[in-house]
Amino acid sequence: MQVIKNIKQMSSLSDKWRQEGKKIAFVPTMGYFHNGHLSLMRKGRLLGDVLVVSIFINPIQFGPKEDFKEYPRNFERDSALAQKEKVDVVFVPDEREMYPPGYQTFVEVTKLTQHLCGLSRPGHFKGVATVVAKLFNIVKPHFALFGLKDYQQYLVIKKMVEDLNFDVQIIGCPTVRESDGLAMSSRNEYLLPEQRGAALSLYKSLKMAQDLFETGEHNAKKIKAEIINFIKTFPYTQIDYVSICDPETLEEIDEIKDKALMALAVRVGKARLIDNLILEVRK
Amino acid sequence: MQVIKNIKQMSSLSDKWRQEGKKIAFVPTMGYFHNGHLSLMRKGRLLGDVLVVSIFINPIQFGPKEDFKEYPRNFERDSALAQKEKVDVVFVPDEREMYPPGYQTFVEVTKLTQHLCGLSRPGHFKGVATVVAKLFNIVKPHFALFGLKDYQQYLVIKKMVEDLNFDVQIIGCPTVRESDGLAMSSRNEYLLPEQRGAALSLYKSLKMAQDLFETGEHNAKKIKAEIINFIKTFPYTQIDYVSICDPETLEEIDEIKDKALMALAVRVGKARLIDNLILEVRK
Repeated sequence: MQVIKNIKQMSSLSDKWRQEGKKIAFVPTMGYFHNGHLSLMRKGRLLGDVLVVSIFINPIQFGPKEDFKEYPRNFERDSALAQKEKVDVVFVPDEREMYPPGYQTFVEVTKLTQHLCGLSRPGHFKGVATVVAKLFNIVKPHFALFGLKDYQQYLVIKKMVEDLNFDVQIIGCPTVRESDGLAMSSRNEYLLPEQRGAALSLYKSLKMAQDLFETGEHNAKKIKAEIINFIKTFPYTQIDYVSICDPETLEEIDEIKDKALMALAVRVGKARLIDNLILEVRK
Repeated sequence: MQVIKNIKQMSSLSDKWRQEGKKIAFVPTMGYFHNGHLSLMRKGRLLGDVLVVSIFINPIQFGPKEDFKEYPRNFERDSALAQKEKVDVVFVPDEREMYPPGYQTFVEVTKLTQHLCGLSRPGHFKGVATVVAKLFNIVKPHFALFGLKDYQQYLVIKKMVEDLNFDVQIIGCPTVRESDGLAMSSRNEYLLPEQRGAALSLYKSLKMAQDLFETGEHNAKKIKAEIINFIKTFPYTQIDYVSICDPETLEEIDEIKDKALMALAVRVGKARLIDNLILEVRK
């Protein structure tokens, strides 16, 4: 496994691979790997002749009061895990090479970002779209893999790729959970032992919404109200949003017909956690 | 010479070329070719193993009151001229395929666009950067050629390429002029015979600024004042801007040291014309 830090070196290697007719699979990450990341790598390993994983904690997708500085880092451990997954290249660009003085170009997906996390984290998805565009231009992948825990991010990237004609296939992979249901996230690291139970309120809420939906409740407002009351029974929690929306446009819906996305963001102590589920009429 | 309208078809052909190790030169245009365009094609012909010219009048770079509808078009003539220049592919994408319903992604270069034409044409460079990003992703060129008459456009594209890590070399080519000095532009088409003399006020202004500079006047305000008075002596003219600025940042300067960009935009009848020149101390 090769560790590449230099942008030009990564880009040239990808060029060489493409000329050799090799298919490049790419997993962009912020590191601090958990099983969610590893599942993306496994899928990438199957799709590509070569597999690139980037580790870059992208400063421009964090708000000024967010956790950029505290975001957990452990390159040694990540590197060992990537090697185990038979990753060909770990690409670890330098922040100063990614955003040199005078940097001024941004990619914006204007509508999908006006919902859910886009409202509580202004500028976040502009930062995400921009860094992913940069990484795509450097790594030149045929396939790029994203976790569906970050459902809105997946949708925003897919839209950017479609709109800007990036020649990359975006693949969304299922959320990986702890045995009790908590969605894996590097930010779970922030949870204190006494907050761990409250963190499960997200998964339990999704289950509750699914039960309500499956037993005939299709009124989104009623489901949301129940969920909000339920989450409030957990200590340490502060709701950011509870949404039932169209899974393609992310526009809020009143009455669930065939299909809806139930998404929520809850602060549990220092950790801002998100999770989601598709509510769907079984046929 | 092949004419390609379909995005996927263009993209696949470029992929094939790249796998064969061919260098792709690309000239993005809005058509209605003049010698300026042809000079870009000739340079592209020298640089690339294959040469692609796109013709696309990009709606999103025109303001609501601008000349999108009247912009001159003549595909038959353009096609014949391209063939003469040994162009391999004329790429003529369809507006509905470039901007389908639900389109919502834009690329913005934030600082360089806050000057010159960026001020009088809000949103213009966002449209330009976006369409060029799209075209680069489709055509996948090694070299892309732009005319220096549109100096700010050249700078904005170069900055976008650098910031977003596009693997494309941007080449600026000298302004091509009529025998009397008028910069070639598809918009010269709008000039009525009686306005043709006034259109020359731009070139004459540049020459006058150069003379003033070379005879020792380095005070930008004084030069600009002289130029403004000079242009006002021509009928049909309406000054949009007269600027003396840093050739890299486009920030207005007071005292010219080594080098400055003199740029101006003047309406002559229906035509909004631009031109520019680098003022430089000869060594």
